[in-house]
Amino acid sequence: MVYEGKAKKVYKTEDEKKYIVEYKDDATAFNGVKKGTIKGKGIINNKMSALLFKILEEKGIPTHFEELISDREMIVKAVKILPIEVIVRNIAAGSLAKRLGLEEGTELKTTVLEFCYKKDELGDPMINEYHIKAIELATEEQLEKVKDYALKINDILVKFFKSKGIKLIDFKLEFGLYDGEVILADEISPDTCRLWDAETNKKLDKDRFRRDLGDVEKSYIEVLERIK
Amino acid sequence: MVYEGKAKKVYKTEDEKKYIVEYKDDATAFNGVKKGTIKGKGIINNKMSALLFKILEEKGIPTHFEELISDREMIVKAVKILPIEVIVRNIAAGSLAKRLGLEEGTELKTTVLEFCYKKDELGDPMINEYHIKAIELATEEQLEKVKDYALKINDILVKFFKSKGIKLIDFKLEFGLYDGEVILADEISPDTCRLWDAETNKKLDKDRFRRDLGDVEKSYIEVLERIK
Ligand SMILES: Nc1ncnc2c1ncn2[C@@H]1O[C@H](COP(=O)(O)OP(=O)(O)O)[C@@H](O)[C@H]1O
Ligand SMILES: Nc1ncnc2c1ncn2[C@@H]1O[C@H](COP(=O)(O)OP(=O)(O)O)[C@@H](O)[C@H]1O
Ligand SMILES: [Mg+2]
Ligand SMILES: [Mg+2]
Repeated sequence: MVYEGKAKKVYKTEDEKKYIVEYKDDATAFNGVKKGTIKGKGIINNKMSALLFKILEEKGIPTHFEELISDREMIVKAVKILPIEVIVRNIAAGSLAKRLGLEEGTELKTTVLEFCYKKDELGDPMINEYHIKAIELATEEQLEKVKDYALKINDILVKFFKSKGIKLIDFKLEFGLYDGEVILADEISPDTCRLWDAETNKKLDKDRFRRDLGDVEKSYIEVLERIK
Repeated sequence: MVYEGKAKKVYKTEDEKKYIVEYKDDATAFNGVKKGTIKGKGIINNKMSALLFKILEEKGIPTHFEELISDREMIVKAVKILPIEVIVRNIAAGSLAKRLGLEEGTELKTTVLEFCYKKDELGDPMINEYHIKAIELATEEQLEKVKDYALKINDILVKFFKSKGIKLIDFKLEFGLYDGEVILADEISPDTCRLWDAETNKKLDKDRFRRDLGDVEKSYIEVLERIK
Protein backbone atom coordinates (compact mmCIF):
# COMPACT_ATOMS: atom_id res chain seq x y z
CA MET A 1 0.00 0.00 0.00
CA VAL A 2 1.22 3.50 -0.86
CA TYR A 3 -1.10 5.35 1.49
CA GLU A 4 -4.15 4.84 3.66
CA GLY A 5 -6.29 7.93 3.98
CA LYS A 6 -9.50 8.58 5.86
CA ALA A 7 -11.75 7.29 3.07
CA LYS A 8 -9.56 5.37 0.64
CA LYS A 9 -6.53 3.13 0.34
CA VAL A 10 -4.04 3.59 -2.46
CA TYR A 11 -2.03 0.60 -3.81
CA LYS A 12 0.82 0.23 -6.25
CA THR A 13 0.36 -1.84 -9.39
CA GLU A 14 2.84 -3.53 -11.70
CA ASP A 15 2.71 -0.40 -13.83
CA GLU A 16 4.47 2.26 -11.81
CA LYS A 17 2.36 4.93 -13.48
CA LYS A 18 -0.88 3.40 -12.20
CA TYR A 19 -2.39 3.02 -8.74
CA ILE A 20 -5.40 1.14 -7.45
CA VAL A 21 -7.71 3.21 -5.26
CA GLU A 22 -9.91 1.25 -2.87
CA TYR A 23 -12.91 3.07 -1.41
CA LYS A 24 -13.65 2.33 2.27
CA ASP A 25 -16.88 2.69 4.24
CA ASP A 26 -15.05 4.74 6.90
CA ALA A 27 -16.43 8.23 7.38
CA THR A 28 -14.85 11.13 9.25
CA ALA A 29 -15.93 14.72 9.76
CA PHE A 30 -14.62 17.93 11.33
CA ASN A 31 -11.00 17.09 10.50
CA GLY A 32 -11.24 13.57 11.85
CA VAL A 33 -12.86 14.48 15.18
CA LYS A 34 -16.08 12.61 14.32
CA LYS A 35 -15.59 9.05 13.13
CA GLY A 36 -18.01 6.40 11.89
CA THR A 37 -18.98 4.02 9.13
CA ILE A 38 -21.47 4.44 6.33
CA LYS A 39 -22.34 0.94 5.13
CA GLY A 40 -21.84 0.52 1.39
CA LYS A 41 -20.43 4.03 0.97
CA GLY A 42 -17.20 2.77 -0.57
CA ILE A 43 -19.10 1.00 -3.33
CA ILE A 44 -21.23 4.04 -4.09
CA ASN A 45 -18.37 6.51 -4.05
CA ASN A 46 -16.30 4.27 -6.31
CA LYS A 47 -19.10 3.94 -8.88
CA MET A 48 -20.18 7.55 -8.70
CA SER A 49 -16.63 8.88 -9.03
CA ALA A 50 -16.06 6.63 -12.05
CA LEU A 51 -19.25 7.86 -13.68
CA LEU A 52 -18.45 11.54 -13.09
CA PHE A 53 -14.79 11.24 -14.10
CA LYS A 54 -15.98 9.68 -17.39
CA ILE A 55 -18.37 12.56 -18.04
CA LEU A 56 -15.65 15.10 -17.29
CA GLU A 57 -13.11 13.35 -19.56
CA GLU A 58 -15.65 13.43 -22.39
CA LYS A 59 -15.99 17.17 -21.87
CA GLY A 60 -12.23 17.71 -22.06
CA ILE A 61 -11.15 17.68 -18.41
CA PRO A 62 -8.12 15.42 -17.86
CA THR A 63 -8.73 13.10 -14.89
CA HIS A 64 -6.80 10.31 -13.18
CA PHE A 65 -9.55 7.76 -13.87
CA GLU A 66 -8.63 4.68 -15.89
CA GLU A 67 -11.12 1.88 -15.12
CA LEU A 68 -13.31 0.24 -12.51
CA ILE A 69 -11.94 -3.14 -11.51
CA SER A 70 -14.28 -4.11 -8.68
CA ASP A 71 -17.12 -2.75 -6.57
CA ARG A 72 -14.71 -0.78 -4.42
CA GLU A 73 -11.67 -0.38 -6.65
CA MET A 74 -10.61 1.66 -9.61
CA ILE A 75 -7.34 1.99 -11.47
CA VAL A 76 -6.09 5.57 -11.66
CA LYS A 77 -3.05 7.40 -12.94
CA ALA A 78 -0.50 7.75 -10.13
CA VAL A 79 -0.12 11.48 -9.56
CA LYS A 80 1.78 13.76 -7.24
CA ILE A 81 -1.14 15.37 -5.40
CA LEU A 82 -0.93 19.19 -5.19
CA PRO A 83 -1.34 19.95 -1.45
CA ILE A 84 -4.30 22.20 -2.16
CA GLU A 85 -7.95 21.37 -1.70
CA VAL A 86 -10.13 23.40 -4.04
CA ILE A 87 -13.66 24.08 -2.84
CA VAL A 88 -16.20 25.26 -5.41
CA ARG A 89 -19.34 26.90 -4.07
CA ASN A 90 -22.56 27.88 -5.82
CA ILE A 91 -24.78 28.30 -2.76
CA ALA A 92 -23.74 29.18 0.80
CA ALA A 93 -23.70 26.18 3.14
CA GLY A 94 -21.58 24.62 5.85
CA SER A 95 -18.49 26.47 7.01
CA LEU A 96 -18.97 29.33 4.54
CA ALA A 97 -22.50 30.10 5.71
CA LYS A 98 -21.34 30.02 9.32
CA ARG A 99 -18.19 32.08 8.84
CA LEU A 100 -19.86 34.81 6.78
CA GLY A 101 -23.13 34.86 8.71
CA LEU A 102 -25.21 33.79 5.68
CA GLU A 103 -28.27 31.62 5.85
CA GLU A 104 -27.63 28.15 4.46
CA GLY A 105 -29.12 28.11 0.99
CA THR A 106 -28.24 31.72 0.09
CA GLU A 107 -27.39 31.93 -3.60
CA LEU A 108 -23.92 33.42 -4.17
CA LYS A 109 -23.70 36.25 -6.73
CA THR A 110 -20.75 34.51 -8.34
CA THR A 111 -19.17 31.07 -8.07
CA VAL A 112 -16.73 31.03 -5.17
CA LEU A 113 -13.43 29.16 -5.20
CA GLU A 114 -11.71 28.51 -1.89
CA PHE A 115 -8.36 26.91 -1.29
CA CYS A 116 -7.20 24.91 1.70
CA TYR A 117 -3.67 23.80 2.43
CA LYS A 118 -4.02 19.99 2.55
CA LYS A 119 -2.13 19.28 5.75
CA ASP A 120 -3.89 17.27 8.44
CA GLU A 121 -1.56 18.43 11.27
CA LEU A 122 -2.62 22.02 10.60
CA GLY A 123 -6.31 21.15 10.15
CA ASP A 124 -6.33 22.02 6.43
CA PRO A 125 -6.28 25.81 6.93
CA MET A 126 -7.90 28.10 4.41
CA ILE A 127 -5.39 29.90 2.21
CA ASN A 128 -5.56 32.18 -0.79
CA GLU A 129 -3.71 32.42 -4.08
CA TYR A 130 -0.97 34.59 -2.58
CA HIS A 131 -0.23 31.96 0.08
CA ILE A 132 -0.06 29.27 -2.60
CA LYS A 133 2.65 31.24 -4.41
CA ALA A 134 4.42 32.46 -1.26
CA ILE A 135 4.93 28.99 0.20
CA GLU A 136 5.25 27.40 -3.24
CA LEU A 137 2.38 24.91 -3.10
CA ALA A 138 1.94 25.32 -6.86
CA THR A 139 3.40 27.42 -9.63
CA GLU A 140 1.43 30.31 -11.06
CA GLU A 141 0.79 28.27 -14.21
CA GLN A 142 -0.45 25.23 -12.26
CA LEU A 143 -2.72 27.42 -10.16
CA GLU A 144 -4.26 29.00 -13.27
CA LYS A 145 -4.93 25.52 -14.66
CA VAL A 146 -6.49 24.41 -11.36
CA LYS A 147 -8.81 27.45 -11.29
CA ASP A 148 -9.78 27.07 -14.92
CA TYR A 149 -10.56 23.36 -14.54
CA ALA A 150 -12.44 23.90 -11.27
CA LEU A 151 -14.80 26.40 -12.87
CA LYS A 152 -15.30 24.23 -15.97
CA ILE A 153 -15.97 21.16 -13.83
CA ASN A 154 -18.52 23.19 -11.91
CA ASP A 155 -20.36 24.16 -15.10
CA ILE A 156 -20.44 20.55 -16.28
CA LEU A 157 -21.51 19.07 -12.95
CA VAL A 158 -24.14 21.71 -12.11
CA LYS A 159 -25.86 20.96 -15.44
CA PHE A 160 -25.49 17.21 -15.04
CA PHE A 161 -26.95 17.08 -11.51
CA LYS A 162 -29.69 19.52 -12.46
CA SER A 163 -30.84 17.11 -15.16
CA LYS A 164 -31.16 14.51 -12.38
CA GLY A 165 -33.19 16.75 -10.07
CA ILE A 166 -30.26 17.57 -7.79
CA LYS A 167 -28.72 20.92 -6.84
CA LEU A 168 -24.94 20.97 -6.64
CA ILE A 169 -24.36 23.28 -3.67
CA ASP A 170 -20.60 22.93 -3.33
CA PHE A 171 -17.82 20.37 -3.72
CA LYS A 172 -14.14 19.74 -3.07
CA LEU A 173 -11.55 18.81 -5.69
CA GLU A 174 -7.95 17.64 -5.57
CA PHE A 175 -5.58 17.89 -8.48
CA GLY A 176 -2.28 16.16 -9.13
CA LEU A 177 0.66 16.24 -11.52
CA TYR A 178 0.99 13.47 -14.10
CA ASP A 179 3.85 13.76 -16.59
CA GLY A 180 4.14 17.33 -15.34
CA GLU A 181 0.54 18.17 -16.27
CA VAL A 182 -2.28 19.13 -13.90
CA ILE A 183 -5.07 16.52 -13.88
CA LEU A 184 -8.10 15.99 -11.68
CA ALA A 185 -7.58 13.27 -9.04
CA ASP A 186 -9.13 11.94 -5.83
CA GLU A 187 -12.93 11.40 -5.84
CA ILE A 188 -16.25 13.10 -6.56
CA SER A 189 -18.94 11.63 -4.33
CA PRO A 190 -21.52 12.51 -1.66
CA ASP A 191 -18.50 12.62 0.69
CA THR A 192 -17.02 15.55 -1.23
CA CYS A 193 -20.11 17.28 -2.65
CA ARG A 194 -23.15 18.92 -1.09
CA LEU A 195 -26.15 17.66 -3.06
CA TRP A 196 -29.71 18.78 -2.33
CA ASP A 197 -32.89 17.47 -3.85
CA ALA A 198 -34.00 20.17 -6.32
CA GLU A 199 -37.63 20.08 -5.13
CA THR A 200 -37.42 19.57 -1.38
CA ASN A 201 -33.85 20.69 -0.63
CA LYS A 202 -33.39 17.40 1.22
CA LYS A 203 -29.69 16.86 1.82
CA LEU A 204 -28.37 13.80 -0.04
CA ASP A 205 -24.76 13.94 1.10
CA LYS A 206 -22.30 13.61 3.94
CA ASP A 207 -24.03 16.37 5.92
CA ARG A 208 -26.53 13.64 6.92
CA PHE A 209 -23.61 11.94 8.70
CA ARG A 210 -21.95 15.15 9.95
CA ARG A 211 -25.18 16.45 11.45
CA ASP A 212 -26.77 13.11 12.44
CA LEU A 213 -29.75 13.65 10.14
CA GLY A 214 -30.48 9.93 9.62
CA ASP A 215 -31.06 8.14 6.27
CA VAL A 216 -27.33 8.32 5.58
CA GLU A 217 -26.89 5.07 3.63
CA LYS A 218 -30.26 5.56 1.91
CA SER A 219 -29.28 9.01 0.62
CA TYR A 220 -25.98 7.82 -0.81
CA ILE A 221 -27.85 5.03 -2.61
CA GLU A 222 -30.46 7.46 -3.86
CA VAL A 223 -27.89 9.78 -5.42
CA LEU A 224 -26.24 6.91 -7.29
CA GLU A 225 -29.62 5.57 -8.44
CA ARG A 226 -30.65 8.96 -9.76
CA ILE A 227 -27.49 9.66 -11.73
CA LYS A 228 -26.61 6.31 -13.16
CA MET B 1 -19.76 61.32 17.69
CA VAL B 2 -20.24 59.21 14.58
CA TYR B 3 -18.62 56.07 15.91
CA GLU B 4 -16.48 54.85 18.79
CA GLY B 5 -14.24 51.97 17.85
CA LYS B 6 -11.72 49.98 19.83
CA ALA B 7 -8.86 52.43 19.27
CA LYS B 8 -10.37 55.66 17.94
CA LYS B 9 -13.37 57.93 18.11
CA VAL B 10 -14.79 59.54 15.00
CA TYR B 11 -16.59 62.91 15.19
CA LYS B 12 -18.56 64.99 12.72
CA THR B 13 -17.36 68.47 11.81
CA GLU B 14 -19.16 71.46 10.34
CA ASP B 15 -18.03 70.26 6.95
CA GLU B 16 -20.03 67.10 6.29
CA LYS B 17 -17.24 65.79 4.09
CA LYS B 18 -14.74 65.88 6.97
CA TYR B 19 -14.45 63.91 10.22
CA ILE B 20 -12.22 64.32 13.24
CA VAL B 21 -10.50 61.10 14.34
CA GLU B 22 -9.38 61.00 17.97
CA TYR B 23 -6.81 58.34 18.88
CA LYS B 24 -7.34 56.64 22.26
CA ASP B 25 -4.88 54.81 24.52
CA ASP B 26 -7.23 51.79 24.65
CA ALA B 27 -5.68 48.60 23.37
CA THR B 28 -7.45 45.37 22.49
CA ALA B 29 -6.21 42.10 21.03
CA PHE B 30 -7.58 38.76 19.83
CA ASN B 31 -10.83 40.30 18.58
CA GLY B 32 -11.42 42.26 21.77
CA VAL B 33 -10.83 39.35 24.20
CA LYS B 34 -7.71 40.99 25.70
CA LYS B 35 -8.20 44.58 26.82
CA GLY B 36 -5.82 47.16 28.27
CA THR B 37 -4.28 50.61 27.98
CA ILE B 38 -1.01 51.68 26.44
CA LYS B 39 -0.20 55.07 27.94
CA GLY B 40 0.44 57.72 25.30
CA LYS B 41 -0.37 55.34 22.43
CA GLY B 42 -3.07 57.63 21.04
CA ILE B 43 -0.60 60.47 20.67
CA ILE B 44 1.99 58.31 18.97
CA ASN B 45 -0.47 56.62 16.61
CA ASN B 46 -1.95 59.98 15.63
CA LYS B 47 1.47 61.48 14.84
CA MET B 48 2.82 58.39 13.15
CA SER B 49 -0.27 57.94 10.99
CA ALA B 50 -0.11 61.60 9.94
CA LEU B 51 3.55 61.26 9.01
CA LEU B 52 3.02 58.08 6.98
CA PHE B 53 -0.14 59.32 5.25
CA LYS B 54 1.84 62.40 4.15
CA ILE B 55 4.61 60.26 2.70
CA LEU B 56 2.09 58.08 0.86
CA GLU B 57 0.22 61.10 -0.57
CA GLU B 58 3.54 62.46 -1.89
CA LYS B 59 4.09 59.15 -3.66
CA GLY B 60 0.66 59.27 -5.30
CA ILE B 61 -1.51 57.21 -2.94
CA PRO B 62 -4.79 59.01 -2.14
CA THR B 63 -5.41 58.99 1.63
CA HIS B 64 -8.06 60.37 3.96
CA PHE B 65 -5.54 62.50 5.86
CA GLU B 66 -6.12 66.26 5.95
CA GLU B 67 -4.32 67.73 8.96
CA LEU B 68 -3.24 67.22 12.56
CA ILE B 69 -5.24 69.43 14.91
CA SER B 70 -4.01 68.26 18.32
CA ASP B 71 -1.85 65.61 19.94
CA ARG B 72 -4.58 63.01 19.56
CA GLU B 73 -6.70 64.37 16.73
CA MET B 74 -6.55 64.65 12.98
CA ILE B 75 -9.03 65.86 10.39
CA VAL B 76 -9.76 63.30 7.70
CA LYS B 77 -12.02 62.92 4.71
CA ALA B 78 -15.27 61.24 5.76
CA VAL B 79 -15.40 58.00 3.81
CA LYS B 80 -17.67 54.99 3.53
CA ILE B 81 -15.33 52.30 4.83
CA LEU B 82 -15.16 49.18 2.64
CA PRO B 83 -15.86 46.30 5.05
CA ILE B 84 -12.60 44.62 4.11
CA GLU B 85 -9.39 44.59 6.09
CA VAL B 86 -6.37 44.15 3.86
CA ILE B 87 -3.35 42.51 5.43
CA VAL B 88 -0.03 42.84 3.63
CA ARG B 89 2.70 40.40 4.63
CA ASN B 90 6.39 40.31 3.77
CA ILE B 91 7.56 37.90 6.45
CA ALA B 92 5.56 35.18 8.22
CA ALA B 93 4.46 36.14 11.73
CA GLY B 94 1.43 35.98 13.99
CA SER B 95 -1.65 34.15 12.75
CA LEU B 96 -0.10 33.33 9.38
CA ALA B 97 2.94 31.64 10.87
CA LYS B 98 0.71 29.64 13.21
CA ARG B 99 -1.90 28.66 10.63
CA LEU B 100 0.61 27.56 7.98
CA GLY B 101 3.11 26.01 10.41
CA LEU B 102 5.90 28.45 9.47
CA GLU B 103 8.51 29.73 11.87
CA GLU B 104 7.96 33.37 12.73
CA GLY B 105 10.45 35.34 10.68
CA THR B 106 10.30 33.11 7.58
CA GLU B 107 10.69 35.25 4.47
CA LEU B 108 7.75 34.79 2.07
CA LYS B 109 8.67 34.11 -1.58
CA THR B 110 6.20 36.77 -2.65
CA THR B 111 4.25 39.51 -0.88
CA VAL B 112 1.03 38.07 0.50
CA LEU B 113 -2.27 39.94 0.57
CA GLU B 114 -5.00 38.65 2.84
CA PHE B 115 -8.53 39.92 3.19
CA CYS B 116 -10.79 39.82 6.22
CA TYR B 117 -14.47 40.65 6.32
CA LYS B 118 -14.60 43.55 8.81
CA LYS B 119 -17.47 42.39 10.99
CA ASP B 120 -16.86 42.17 14.74
CA GLU B 121 -19.83 39.80 15.38
CA LEU B 122 -18.23 37.25 13.05
CA GLY B 123 -14.71 37.81 14.41
CA ASP B 124 -13.42 39.37 11.15
CA PRO B 125 -13.22 36.06 9.23
CA MET B 126 -10.64 35.59 6.51
CA ILE B 127 -12.11 35.78 3.02
CA ASN B 128 -10.76 35.76 -0.50
CA GLU B 129 -11.43 37.74 -3.65
CA TYR B 130 -14.25 35.42 -4.72
CA HIS B 131 -16.09 35.97 -1.42
CA ILE B 132 -15.69 39.74 -1.82
CA LYS B 133 -17.46 39.56 -5.19
CA ALA B 134 -19.99 36.90 -4.17
CA ILE B 135 -21.30 38.82 -1.17
CA GLU B 136 -20.69 42.20 -2.83
CA LEU B 137 -18.30 43.75 -0.32
CA ALA B 138 -16.65 45.65 -3.18
CA THR B 139 -16.92 45.81 -6.94
CA GLU B 140 -14.30 44.17 -9.12
CA GLU B 141 -12.92 47.61 -9.99
CA GLN B 142 -12.71 48.70 -6.35
CA LEU B 143 -10.98 45.45 -5.42
CA GLU B 144 -8.39 45.90 -8.16
CA LYS B 145 -7.68 49.43 -6.86
CA VAL B 146 -7.39 48.14 -3.29
CA LYS B 147 -4.90 45.45 -4.33
CA ASP B 148 -2.88 47.83 -6.47
CA TYR B 149 -2.67 50.45 -3.70
CA ALA B 150 -1.87 47.85 -1.04
CA LEU B 151 1.14 46.57 -2.98
CA LYS B 152 2.34 50.10 -3.79
CA ILE B 153 1.95 51.17 -0.16
CA ASN B 154 3.98 48.13 0.84
CA ASP B 155 6.82 49.08 -1.50
CA ILE B 156 6.88 52.63 -0.18
CA LEU B 157 6.68 51.69 3.49
CA VAL B 158 9.18 48.82 3.34
CA LYS B 159 11.77 51.22 1.91
CA PHE B 160 10.89 53.97 4.34
CA PHE B 161 11.13 51.80 7.45
CA LYS B 162 14.28 50.14 6.17
CA SER B 163 15.95 53.55 5.98
CA LYS B 164 15.09 53.91 9.69
CA GLY B 165 16.54 50.53 10.70
CA ILE B 166 13.15 48.84 10.95
CA LYS B 167 11.77 45.78 9.15
CA LEU B 168 8.13 46.03 8.07
CA ILE B 169 6.91 42.48 8.68
CA ASP B 170 3.20 42.95 7.96
CA PHE B 171 0.42 45.51 8.33
CA LYS B 172 -3.31 46.04 8.03
CA LEU B 173 -5.03 48.62 5.84
CA GLU B 174 -8.58 49.88 5.50
CA PHE B 175 -9.88 51.68 2.45
CA GLY B 176 -12.97 53.80 1.97
CA LEU B 177 -14.97 55.48 -0.75
CA TYR B 178 -14.80 59.26 -1.07
CA ASP B 179 -16.68 60.83 -3.98
CA GLY B 180 -16.94 57.28 -5.30
CA GLU B 181 -13.16 56.80 -5.36
CA VAL B 182 -11.14 54.32 -3.31
CA ILE B 183 -8.80 56.07 -0.85
CA LEU B 184 -6.69 54.84 2.06
CA ALA B 185 -8.33 55.45 5.46
CA ASP B 186 -8.00 54.40 9.11
CA GLU B 187 -4.49 54.42 10.62
CA ILE B 188 -0.95 53.15 10.13
CA SER B 189 0.73 52.67 13.49
CA PRO B 190 2.41 50.10 15.73
CA ASP B 191 -1.16 48.92 16.44
CA THR B 192 -1.63 47.94 12.80
CA CYS B 193 1.93 47.08 11.71
CA ARG B 194 4.47 44.51 12.83
CA LEU B 195 7.78 46.36 13.08
CA TRP B 196 11.03 44.64 14.05
CA ASP B 197 14.37 46.24 14.73
CA ALA B 198 16.48 45.50 11.65
CA GLU B 199 19.53 44.46 13.71
CA THR B 200 18.10 42.61 16.71
CA ASN B 201 14.61 41.66 15.46
CA LYS B 202 13.24 43.20 18.65
CA LYS B 203 9.49 43.67 18.24
CA LEU B 204 8.51 47.35 18.31
CA ASP B 205 4.76 46.96 17.91
CA LYS B 206 1.51 45.78 19.45
CA ASP B 207 2.82 42.21 19.77
CA ARG B 208 4.57 43.49 22.93
CA PHE B 209 1.07 44.07 24.35
CA ARG B 210 -0.54 40.96 22.80
CA ARG B 211 2.18 38.67 24.14
CA ASP B 212 3.01 40.55 27.37
CA LEU B 213 6.61 41.20 26.30
CA GLY B 214 7.02 44.38 28.37
CA ASP B 215 8.44 47.75 27.20
CA VAL B 216 5.15 48.43 25.40
CA GLU B 217 5.02 52.23 25.78
CA LYS B 218 8.78 52.49 25.29
CA SER B 219 8.64 50.65 21.97
CA TYR B 220 5.85 52.82 20.58
CA ILE B 221 7.87 55.89 21.53
CA GLU B 222 11.00 54.43 19.98
CA VAL B 223 9.30 53.82 16.63
CA LEU B 224 8.03 57.39 16.46
CA GLU B 225 11.43 58.79 17.48
CA ARG B 226 13.19 56.78 14.79
CA ILE B 227 10.91 57.74 11.93
CA LYS B 228 10.15 61.37 12.64
N1 LIG C 1 -4.40 9.51 -8.57
C1 LIG C 1 -3.85 9.62 -7.36
N2 LIG C 1 -2.53 9.42 -7.17
C2 LIG C 1 -1.96 9.55 -5.95
N3 LIG C 1 -2.66 9.86 -4.83
C3 LIG C 1 -3.98 10.07 -4.96
C4 LIG C 1 -4.65 9.97 -6.21
N4 LIG C 1 -5.96 10.27 -6.01
C5 LIG C 1 -6.10 10.53 -4.70
N5 LIG C 1 -4.93 10.42 -4.04
C6 LIG C 1 -4.67 10.62 -2.62
O1 LIG C 1 -5.03 9.44 -1.95
C7 LIG C 1 -5.19 9.73 -0.56
C8 LIG C 1 -6.27 8.86 0.02
O2 LIG C 1 -7.54 9.43 -0.06
P1 LIG C 1 -8.38 9.77 1.24
O3 LIG C 1 -8.69 8.53 2.01
O4 LIG C 1 -9.52 10.62 0.76
O5 LIG C 1 -7.31 10.63 2.08
P2 LIG C 1 -7.46 11.84 3.09
O6 LIG C 1 -7.56 11.22 4.45
O7 LIG C 1 -6.18 12.62 2.89
O8 LIG C 1 -8.68 12.63 2.66
C9 LIG C 1 -5.37 11.24 -0.48
O9 LIG C 1 -4.20 11.81 0.08
C10 LIG C 1 -5.50 11.65 -1.93
O10 LIG C 1 -4.99 12.96 -2.12
N1 LIG D 1 -11.90 58.51 7.08
C1 LIG D 1 -12.77 57.74 7.73
N2 LIG D 1 -14.12 57.95 7.56
C2 LIG D 1 -15.01 57.16 8.21
N3 LIG D 1 -14.67 56.17 9.05
C3 LIG D 1 -13.36 55.92 9.26
C4 LIG D 1 -12.35 56.69 8.61
N4 LIG D 1 -11.15 56.20 8.99
C5 LIG D 1 -11.39 55.18 9.83
N5 LIG D 1 -12.72 54.99 10.00
C6 LIG D 1 -13.40 54.02 10.86
O1 LIG D 1 -13.40 54.51 12.17
C7 LIG D 1 -13.65 53.43 13.07
C8 LIG D 1 -12.90 53.66 14.37
O2 LIG D 1 -11.62 53.11 14.35
P1 LIG D 1 -11.18 51.97 15.35
O3 LIG D 1 -11.27 52.45 16.76
O4 LIG D 1 -9.87 51.48 14.85
O5 LIG D 1 -12.37 50.92 15.12
P2 LIG D 1 -12.42 49.31 15.18
O6 LIG D 1 -12.80 48.97 16.58
O7 LIG D 1 -13.47 48.97 14.16
O8 LIG D 1 -11.05 48.82 14.77
C9 LIG D 1 -13.34 52.16 12.27
O9 LIG D 1 -14.55 51.51 11.96
C10 LIG D 1 -12.71 52.69 11.00
O10 LIG D 1 -13.00 51.82 9.91
MG1 LIG E 1 -9.98 12.59 1.09
MG1 LIG F 1 -9.34 49.63 14.06
